[in-house]
Amino acid sequence: MRTFFDCIPCFLRQTLDAMRFIGAPEDVYESVLRGVLEQASRMDLLRPPPEMGQVIHRTIRAAVGDTDPYRSVKERATRLALERLPGLRRQVEARGAGRFESAVRIAIAGNAIDFGVKASFRDDDLDRAVDASWSAPVDTRAIEALRGAAEDARRILYIGDNAGEVVLDRLLIEAIGPSKVTFAVRGSAVLNDATREDADASGLSALVEVVDSGSDAPGTVLPDCSEDFRRRFREADLVIAKGQGNYESLSGPEAVSLAGGRLFFLLQAKCPVIAAHIGFPEGSLVVMEAADPQG
Amino acid sequence: MRTFFDCIPCFLRQTLDAMRFIGAPEDVYESVLRGVLEQASRMDLLRPPPEMGQVIHRTIRAAVGDTDPYRSVKERATRLALERLPGLRRQVEARGAGRFESAVRIAIAGNAIDFGVKASFRDDDLDRAVDASWSAPVDTRAIEALRGAAEDARRILYIGDNAGEVVLDRLLIEAIGPSKVTFAVRGSAVLNDATREDADASGLSALVEVVDSGSDAPGTVLPDCSEDFRRRFREADLVIAKGQGNYESLSGPEAVSLAGGRLFFLLQAKCPVIAAHIGFPEGSLVVMEAADPQG
Repeated sequence: MRTFFDCIPCFLRQTLDAMRFIGAPEDVYESVLRGVLEQASRMDLLRPPPEMGQVIHRTIRAAVGDTDPYRSVKERATRLALERLPGLRRQVEARGAGRFESAVRIAIAGNAIDFGVKASFRDDDLDRAVDASWSAPVDTRAIEALRGAAEDARRILYIGDNAGEVVLDRLLIEAIGPSKVTFAVRGSAVLNDATREDADASGLSALVEVVDSGSDAPGTVLPDCSEDFRRRFREADLVIAKGQGNYESLSGPEAVSLAGGRLFFLLQAKCPVIAAHIGFPEGSLVVMEAADPQG
Repeated sequence: MRTFFDCIPCFLRQTLDAMRFIGAPEDVYESVLRGVLEQASRMDLLRPPPEMGQVIHRTIRAAVGDTDPYRSVKERATRLALERLPGLRRQVEARGAGRFESAVRIAIAGNAIDFGVKASFRDDDLDRAVDASWSAPVDTRAIEALRGAAEDARRILYIGDNAGEVVLDRLLIEAIGPSKVTFAVRGSAVLNDATREDADASGLSALVEVVDSGSDAPGTVLPDCSEDFRRRFREADLVIAKGQGNYESLSGPEAVSLAGGRLFFLLQAKCPVIAAHIGFPEGSLVVMEAADPQG
């Protein structure tokens, strides 16, 4: 997905929100904002928004001198999701034939843990997102297609999004069968996106192979990823990409055509630009397969 | 007032809103946004926001090749306000001793006609603003101070804001006594701000002397105004400045100390930054005297 004009004011708003959220000293605000403005003035609008997100968060991290300013936030989100996990697992498993769909719903509910679109997140925001997800409208045919693709696949690459959210991804991975799943996290810290440390703390590393993208973009910008990651992306029979950042960076025709197998997006459509691009109302639970650019 | 960090995303949002509102061709959006980003990256944050507004609207006018893209909007606002004027005048005059305060309220209600903060304006928005203004909380002591200052003054400079709004300023000028009032408009077209053409169409030019600022800033940026305007600003016993743009550009200590007489602001606090700066809730009717920087 390209960068839309409406993303531009939002980049600046996110920059400011992020600095406030991490408690950046006021004296760095000006230099960070100037840096982001200057780089935004030269950006390629045909590239996806997470490339600018990468620039923004690199600029902020350098200015505050902290390689991982969201560390404590991520740890809190992981603890919260781990607390909720056993109860949610019981509820999902009790659904019998509806287990796969329920696991998809909870995995998408976890995508509410996001500090990019909204600069704050409280414990009861997750509970509310989970409560709403049980009965929210969702494309059940797309879920059936995903279930079929997961059954047929031998190699599944599951690209995670945020810390805490990845804990709830475990329920879907358990429903799919962990043995054929490789879980991907970001190459290093950016925003509250999950890294290897968060995957370890989430219990994912004990369940599946964990790889990282090699990139600090808040999404999956393939040209910026490691060759090893790109090979896994090409060789997987099925890629499941979670969240807006992965959607933004993997829904364009170049990325879609690089996927050797099928490619599904699971996300909450949290901003009006994404919602319009997907054609879903804002706030929707989205399950969709990328269209094959070859036809 | 300096430019606050929160003004920066808003500059970009306003740029986009303005291009959509005036129906700019899509192919100019990118170059305009890049120009605004680049200029914002170098702006002096100690200067008031209308200086960036001036840059934004100059960039847009140059890109669309139209020296006054809000012309038809301004004409519509003027017609609407002229339609409402006789009825409002009857209501204001019927208030007897409350006439001055009522005229102040209606003049501030007219400040709702603004295409900067919100990119659209409908006829019933004015009617709603007028209805609300009759009973909205307002600082009656500040109004009494203004009435006293107006009675004492021999030379009053009344700095208008938007087309349409200036029609309703007539009621306050009538309450003050037009003979000692000079009315100031922008030097040339910017946004929907009133220019001499709008003052003529509003019937103001038949009522009072009309001067222009000599500047196309959407406010009163004194260093950018004509020497004639600055002289009038210094020599007036009382300056009445309408709207956010005039507040932003005239509330700093340099501008306040240049005013030879007393300086009052009349506005609706339409954005959170201004509301916080003034210390009024967003949406308030504001009547306030500038504090003398000499103490």
